[in-house]
Formats: sequence, structure tokens, C-alpha cells
Amino acid sequence: MSTYKAPLADIRFALYDVLGAEALFARLGFADASRDIVDAVLDEGARFNETVLAPLNRIGDEVGCVYDKTSGDVTTPPGFKQAYAQYVDGGWAGLTSPIEFGGQGMPHAAGVPLKEMIDAANLAWGNFPLLSHGATEALLHHGEAWQQEVFLKALVDGRWTGTMCLTEPHCGTDLGLLKTRATPNADGSHAVNGTKIFITAGEHDFTDNIVHLVLARLPDAPAGSKGISLFIVPKFKVGKDGVVGERNGVRCGAIEHKMGIHGSATCVINFDDAQGWLIGEPNKGLAAMFTMMNTARLAVGLQGLGLADRAYQNALRYARERLQGRSLSGPKQPDKPADPIIVHPDVRRMLLTQKALTEGGRLLGYHAATLVDVVGHGADEQERQQADALLGFVTPIVKACLTEWGVECTYHALQCFGGHGYIAEHGMEQLARDARITTLYEGTTGIQALDLMGRKVMQLQGAGLRVFLGMIEAFCKEQEGNEALHEFVAPLRAKAGEWQQLTISIGQRAVANADEVGAAAYDYLFYSGYVALAYWWARSVAAAETSSQSDAFKAAKRETARFYFARILPRTQAHAAAIGSGAASLMSMDVTHFGG
Amino acid sequence: MSTYKAPLADIRFALYDVLGAEALFARLGFADASRDIVDAVLDEGARFNETVLAPLNRIGDEVGCVYDKTSGDVTTPPGFKQAYAQYVDGGWAGLTSPIEFGGQGMPHAAGVPLKEMIDAANLAWGNFPLLSHGATEALLHHGEAWQQEVFLKALVDGRWTGTMCLTEPHCGTDLGLLKTRATPNADGSHAVNGTKIFITAGEHDFTDNIVHLVLARLPDAPAGSKGISLFIVPKFKVGKDGVVGERNGVRCGAIEHKMGIHGSATCVINFDDAQGWLIGEPNKGLAAMFTMMNTARLAVGLQGLGLADRAYQNALRYARERLQGRSLSGPKQPDKPADPIIVHPDVRRMLLTQKALTEGGRLLGYHAATLVDVVGHGADEQERQQADALLGFVTPIVKACLTEWGVECTYHALQCFGGHGYIAEHGMEQLARDARITTLYEGTTGIQALDLMGRKVMQLQGAGLRVFLGMIEAFCKEQEGNEALHEFVAPLRAKAGEWQQLTISIGQRAVANADEVGAAAYDYLFYSGYVALAYWWARSVAAAETSSQSDAFKAAKRETARFYFARILPRTQAHAAAIGSGAASLMSMDVTHFGG
Repeated sequence: MSTYKAPLADIRFALYDVLGAEALFARLGFADASRDIVDAVLDEGARFNETVLAPLNRIGDEVGCVYDKTSGDVTTPPGFKQAYAQYVDGGWAGLTSPIEFGGQGMPHAAGVPLKEMIDAANLAWGNFPLLSHGATEALLHHGEAWQQEVFLKALVDGRWTGTMCLTEPHCGTDLGLLKTRATPNADGSHAVNGTKIFITAGEHDFTDNIVHLVLARLPDAPAGSKGISLFIVPKFKVGKDGVVGERNGVRCGAIEHKMGIHGSATCVINFDDAQGWLIGEPNKGLAAMFTMMNTARLAVGLQGLGLADRAYQNALRYARERLQGRSLSGPKQPDKPADPIIVHPDVRRMLLTQKALTEGGRLLGYHAATLVDVVGHGADEQERQQADALLGFVTPIVKACLTEWGVECTYHALQCFGGHGYIAEHGMEQLARDARITTLYEGTTGIQALDLMGRKVMQLQGAGLRVFLGMIEAFCKEQEGNEALHEFVAPLRAKAGEWQQLTISIGQRAVANADEVGAAAYDYLFYSGYVALAYWWARSVAAAETSSQSDAFKAAKRETARFYFARILPRTQAHAAAIGSGAASLMSMDVTHFGG
Repeated sequence: MSTYKAPLADIRFALYDVLGAEALFARLGFADASRDIVDAVLDEGARFNETVLAPLNRIGDEVGCVYDKTSGDVTTPPGFKQAYAQYVDGGWAGLTSPIEFGGQGMPHAAGVPLKEMIDAANLAWGNFPLLSHGATEALLHHGEAWQQEVFLKALVDGRWTGTMCLTEPHCGTDLGLLKTRATPNADGSHAVNGTKIFITAGEHDFTDNIVHLVLARLPDAPAGSKGISLFIVPKFKVGKDGVVGERNGVRCGAIEHKMGIHGSATCVINFDDAQGWLIGEPNKGLAAMFTMMNTARLAVGLQGLGLADRAYQNALRYARERLQGRSLSGPKQPDKPADPIIVHPDVRRMLLTQKALTEGGRLLGYHAATLVDVVGHGADEQERQQADALLGFVTPIVKACLTEWGVECTYHALQCFGGHGYIAEHGMEQLARDARITTLYEGTTGIQALDLMGRKVMQLQGAGLRVFLGMIEAFCKEQEGNEALHEFVAPLRAKAGEWQQLTISIGQRAVANADEVGAAAYDYLFYSGYVALAYWWARSVAAAETSSQSDAFKAAKRETARFYFARILPRTQAHAAAIGSGAASLMSMDVTHFGG
């Protein structure tokens, strides 16, 4: 079975030494987020995840959620419900929610390490509270006072959980096609009718009630995505006074048999004259849903990160223990029957790829979380605006890169185990199967790429990119006299310049042909992700040097950064070449020529 | 459920138009391999695979092999045994085996398309006959007359199946560590004792007997890999007269719970004073095993190819059917609620990547098969030697690239389905899980890379590479006046030159530091694979132009080749940069700095 130990040292390094979270939290007015308190939260979170959630990961996969056709009930795997009760008792549910609604008001950036730990410990379990967070965000920003009082507080204290009901059998990405209907009732509520699929945490035995946030069409709604409204539809009806009543017309019709995350209930939810309450304005549901979705996208990025880290920990342990073959440059442990496989360059390549993408990716993800805090709590209008532009720009990068790297890292980790990685016993194949969902839900990688290229770069004229480039340039300037950083700063600067040029060239081509945007999007996103990571690795080395970390820690950061610049960053060359080749190689082939 | 249709048009194009198989088979003296006959075999093979094996793929995954602890028996999934009987009745088992042992004596290159079809139709099932082929090769080259009479004939006609028993719990790649013992009996046989793991087809209900080829140590054997001998150990004892006797001391102790290929029995096999017969010379077992392994490596490459093709077929169908969103350059099917997703550049990127790697990879794999035929049947000594050097050089490329590309293609295909790809219903996630084993067994990708770089390039001084480079140069010369080929020939020539330079530079660095070989190996292998594919794509365009294929077929080849050169071949840049960065970025990190 795979094991998990929360990477507290690197989490603290990322938060404090690189991102300066202590000063940031103070400046943003988080009085309760002193370093002492955050550290205590991290320690306690590590304990909970290592001892409660991580040991349930394997049984969650083996037993999975079980659906009862007669009752429509879903039973979660053994131990899941009890773990959720401990989670609620520990006050984890409302960690970063506002104090006025019963939360603990901690910064988002203090919450992400906990999120990462949960995903690493038990991704399938983590999806239950995750969906509550999305619903919390939507109610916070768009809910009426009574809806916040009744539903939001119950979500914040974990008494109930939430869902996001978007997808229907014929529409996923293209929500303009959705058919679920909502017709007004006399009492101000609506009768919701339709079928939703792929509803994570749609039914379970954790809580007495479930708060579904449902996209549906009002009778007079315009066609397409401009005619979608958002409704709160609880499993059990709830009055405006908060009193829980009879069962609503909401029923789980089936759960999916999936490649992984067997412990997550992925439900078909049927709404049959279900009582729902409009949230936000009519026909503005998609905008409200995007509030949830952006939070969720950052969160799914962390899922990739968490799985990558757990995979790496296990691959590293195995590579140190497994004796097989001898080093090409002479035996390293001549007293043993063979050397540990970590002596082999190719095993090191796989390990360092995981280490570089995981530790660098941690900064990518945590930095985005600090932006969420600045946007929400910054005193300065311009600072807030800049943070918002940058957050919008990095959100698809965080989502797509961290999840694709999660897939890649779990791949390498499994590969380090050889044939043993393919059998269930070691738990590596579960990590690979679980990781595979992350590049699909909350918008596939291709959708993230279009969001970045089409919306964040083209429509918003690269406002976020400019902030990022400014951040890189400021760092490079600051390090100009630092000989020890030169090996990183020089190539980083060159890449930043190339990034800007690539962006301009795509924009120019897009004037003549709109397909150039879509044709460049995927490679542009990964180009951006690798340059962003080069920045975070250079900053990591700089931050380590001036920190009080041990010499070994500093050396490890520098050596990993060297590996990253030498062997991962060159991937940008392939992406740049693909971008440069333009749309023709993708678009000129006739549909019939693809085959079959 | 995923469907499968044998890609006969492209198979024939590869065999006849590109590889000139008709003339080659005639020249090598395969009298029974006229185009008419081979075509009939392909048609009948397609029918068998599409109608018998492919429909069993899903149930094989769902039910899997079942182990009975009391009896040690393994029951294969419903329909598997019957399909095997049809396979044997159809004469497929001995298709490419020598006529003198009951085979049909067809060229290896006429057998590979069938192998590809089987792997695509039902990989898990295909592993049962695959292992027989390995045993067949070993007996053919190293067996005594009576062993060939008794065991080889039974394998060729499919009455019995074979296994390769190499791995033990503590040794996989490093067979020098193996502990299984063989002590001489009075009758000339040996008593074999030990435990083998990961034995594919180690136990099943297809046949009355199973022929295990087992690596073990004789009492006086030298330590390490020089003291390993090969033994035939049948499940039921067989006398030299071929009479089957009592049950041998061979028992399946368990089957593995795996990520995929659930329909393949992956067994722990316990040998308890089992009667075994030495095959080949004492202490030369590893060499004999390599005879099996090289065949098996090419065969596993084809597994990657077959899965990639099946995945592509289904992704393409879905991309044409699934309506979601509108083309960025304006609606393509305005009468429908949305455009099919194949209008989107990023979906095309994923599809064309699969198409380019699959059709190009088919030539890589089939070409290797023609080399097997030339090595075995060429009249000219020099031609045989050159073919042998080239075959040795391309074998690790075929194994590693086709399997890694198989993983990549099944990944893209699943991704084309969005969230639907993650659920079992569509069968895409099974293809991805099944593909994952192929980069692990018969030597991981890292082992293939070391075989290429360390043995085929360094030890054998690049003899095979020289043949490949000569082949490329001859083709480029031949096409010099052909304007229509210039866009491919010019970059191919440049890449071939760079390939040679890279090889020389690694060789120079390796003089000073043996770890440079291992540090370059992985990237060198993929660099080589992508240049090889560029060659096969350029040749495909050239061959299509002069063929009697339809204009649409010719256009499809040219457009796919353009995609390949524009968007896949640039991956070589990242690999070249990684190679150029040398061993330091991998080797300088202290083992303790990796973390944990």
C-alpha cells in the first residue's frame, strides 16, 4: 500500500520563505493567521490526514461507493462517514469561510496546504467537502440573506454538503445545450425537472441533507447559455425558517463505474418536480456558476499536486530500497547483492521530474491562493485589480498544468516500481487511476487552454500576462548582481521575452484566422506553465539562499532547479515550434481523411 | 463499449506499398506467401478478431481470471477458452512457425498484422498465445530433437501453451540475483525448486498442459547472470516419447490483482521438486532466454500499436458524433444544435497525434518484422548481417516507442471523450489501463533505452544506426528531384545529421564518465524514435504518391505527415537539449537530498 506523510517542510518553505505569507496575511488583516496559529493548523492537519484519511485510501478504492437501486441511497466505503464526522468536529469544513457564517476566517493561502494534504491522503474522500466549497462560494456571492442563513451556514459548519449540477447526458462543456427546466411555483420557489449526470457527491451517507446547486432554464429563458439560471435544490425541503421538511423530488438514479476515485459517488441525479430556489438573477446562472467553477479549478489543480507528491514519496522510498543491478560507474553498495535503483540515471530522471514538477507546482498553486486573498482583502484598489487579472490568467494554468503533471508524476512513480507498479498491492496504480480524472472534470485541459488563450490573453488583452511578466522582470532585476542566481536568471529572462513574442505572434495570426487561437492554445498553455515554473524555481533558489533552511535543503533546491532548467524547461522548445507552425497542420485535413 | 475494425487498408498500404512485402517474400523464398494468400489470411484474421475476440474484451476486463485457492486452478473469463479453441482450429497458432514442426511457414511480416489485430481486439486474451511464441522460439533455436518433437510441435499446433518464468520477488531486471534451483535427477532430468512471479499465462483452462520455460541455477553454477540455465518444466510430466504422465510439482500459488489486462492470468508459480529438462547448454540460459525476449519485445511493441489504433478508431467516431460548442471560425453544422467536436483545433490535435503515431508506428513495427524475415531467410550473408544489426538497433525503439505511444494515444483518446472517457461504459479507460502494462513488462522503457544506448550504440559501435542512416540517405537521394517530397526530405536529412552528431557527442562524453550513457539513454531513444518516424512518414508520402491508392488516401497521408513534421517531430528539440545537458543534472544530487 502507498503511504503518505504531509510534506510540512516544503509547505512551510513555500508559504513563508518564498511567498512571504506571514507578512502578507498581516498586511491583509488576517489577525488570526499569525505564523504560530497557521503552523498549528498545518501540524494538526498533517496528523488528521496522515492518520485518518490516508489509511482509508485503499479500501475506498477496493470497496467503492455502493448504490441501492430500491432506495436510491449511496453507501460510502467503510470509515468514510466516520472520517467526515471527525473532519467536521475538528472544524475543518469552514476553515477559510467567513467568521460571520460560522467559519474560521483563515486566508485561502493557509487553507490550500490542507487541501493538498487531503487530496494526497484520499482524493476520493476529498471530493465530498470539495463540492461544498464550491456551493459555499456561490451562496456567499449570490445568495439572498435567508439562503445564506439557511444553506450557507449549514455548508460552512459541515452539517450538510453541496454539489454542482451542471452536466447533462448531451451537454458537458457546452452548457448552452442544457434542458433541465424550472417553472415558478406559487410560493416563490420553482419546480425543477430534468436529469443531471456526473454529479460528484450527489448522494451519500455523510449528512442528513445535501444542497444541490442546479443549472436550469426558466420558461421564458432565451436559448443558449444566456438563458440559464441557478437554483438551490436541497435533498430534503427546507423552509425559509430553516426547518427541514419532507423529502424533495431529488433522487440518485445510478452511480458511475469509473476508472478511479471509486470512493467518490459520481451520480445521475433525477429532479422530479423538485422544489428549488432561484439564486442570483434569472438567466445569470452561468456567471454565478463560474464563481464556483474558478474556485473548483484551482482546487482540482491541487488534486494533481497532492497525488504527484504522494506518488513521489512512494517512488523515492522504493528507489532507495529496491536492490537491482549495479551502477554503470561502479558498485555503490558492494556489500549488498545489488545497488538500490536510485543509482541509475534513468531512475533519477523519473524521480527528479516528479520532484521538480511537484515542488515547483506547489508554488504555482499556493501563489494563486495568495492572489485569492489579495483580491478579497487587499486594501489597495490597483493591487486588487492586478491580482485579479493575474489570478484569472494563472487559474487555467494551475488547473491544467498541475493535473497533467499529476498524471505524468503518477506515471513516472508507477514506472519506478517496474512490474510491481502495475499490481494493486503497492497502491501506485490507484494513484495513476485517480489522477486521470483531474484533467477531465471542471473543464478538460483543452478547455483550460482555450480559457487562457481565447479569454485571458485575447479578450482581456493579456492583462494578466503583463502582470506576470512584470513580476519576472522585477525578480530578475533584483537578482542582477547575484552571481549565484545568474545560471537561472539569464535563461528565465530569455524565456520571458520569448513568451511575450509568442503571445504577440499568435495575436497577429488570429486576426486573419480565428482557428489560430484554438490551434495554439494547448501548446501556449504548457509553454506558459513551464516558464512560470522556471520563475518559481529561480525564486525558490533565491529564497532558500537567504532563508534559515539547512545547507542540505538549500543544496536540494539548487540541484533540483538545475535539473529543471536543464531537462524540463527545454520542453518549451517543442511547444514553441508547435505554436509557430500555425493552424494549417491541424485544420487543413478534411474530416473524411481522418479515417474509418 | 469500444469497438474495433481491423485497419486493413492501412495494413496493406504498409506491407505492400511502403515495405514492398510482395517482392520481398518472393525473394526470400516464401512460396506460400503470395499476395493473394496473404490477403486472404488478413481478411480471415480481421473477421476472427472483429467477431470473436473483440466482443470478449469488455467481459474479460469485468470478470477477469479467477483463481481457486484449493485446486490452484485458474478459470479464464467467459468465452476466452472457446475463442482459443477457434484460434487453434483456424490454424492461427502456427501461422509463422516452420512447416517441419507443423506450422504454416508464413513470413514474420505477414504475421505481425494478425498480432496487431489480436492485441487491438483483446490484449488480455492475446497474452496467452503470445507467450507460446516466445517458448516456440527458444525451443526452435536451443531445443534438442526430442524436445522439439514433444514440446515444440504441441506449442506450434496450439495444443499446449508456453510461459517464460524469469522474475522472482527480489529480481526482475537483474536476473543475476535469481534463486530458483535445479538439481540433477538420475534419469537426466532436473528437480526444480523455487518461486516465480508475474508469470503471464502461468495457469489457465485453455489447454491440457502448459510448457514453462524456467530460469534456474544448477548446483555448481557460478554466481550472477553467468550461472543461469534454462529448463522446460511442463505442468504435467511428459516422457521423451511424448506420453503425458502425472501432475508435475508445479502449482499456481496466486494471481495478481492488476490495473488492467484482467483477462490475462498473471501468476505466482511455485516449483516443488518439479521435473524439468535442461534446454541448451548449462549456464547459458540467459542467452537462450534472450532469444525469446527479443521476439517478445517486438511483440509487446505491437501491443502498444494495436491499443493505440483501437483507441483512435473510437475517439474519431466520438469526435464526429458528439455535438458540443461551435467552431471558433463560425458554425460548421448550423442546422444542428452544436458542431461535432472534431471542428475544434485541440480535438484535431489529439486525433492527429494518435493517427500520426499509429500509422507511422505501424511501419516501424512491420519493418522490424521484415528484418526478422531477412535475417532468417536472406540469401546474401552481408544482407543478413546488416538486417541483423538494424534489427538489434530498432528492437528497443519498437518496444519502447510503440508502447509509450500506445499509452499516449490511449490517453488522448480517453481525453477526447471528456468525462465520458473516465467511465467504464465507453471502454476507453480499459484501453488506457491495459496499455499501461506494455511499458513495464519485457523490460521497462528505461531498460530498452539502456539496451539501445549501452549495447546497440556503444558496445556494437552503432552498426545498426549506420544501416538506418544509410537507409535514410538513400531515400533522400532518391527523392532529390522530387519537388513534392522536398518539404519532408529536407528536415529529415537535417535530423539524420543531428542524430549522428548527437550519437558521437554522447560517445565522447561517455569515455570520461560511464553515467553519461545512462543519463542520455531515455532521451536518445525517443529522439531516435521520432527521427525514425519522420523517415517512415516521408516514405509513406512517397509510396502513396506512386501507388494506386485513392486521391483521398494520398491526401490523408500527406496531411498527416505535415502534422507530424510540424507538431510532433519538434519533440526532438527537447530531447536533444536534455541529452546535451549531460549527466550532472541527474547525478550530482546527493541521495539524501531527494527528500523524505
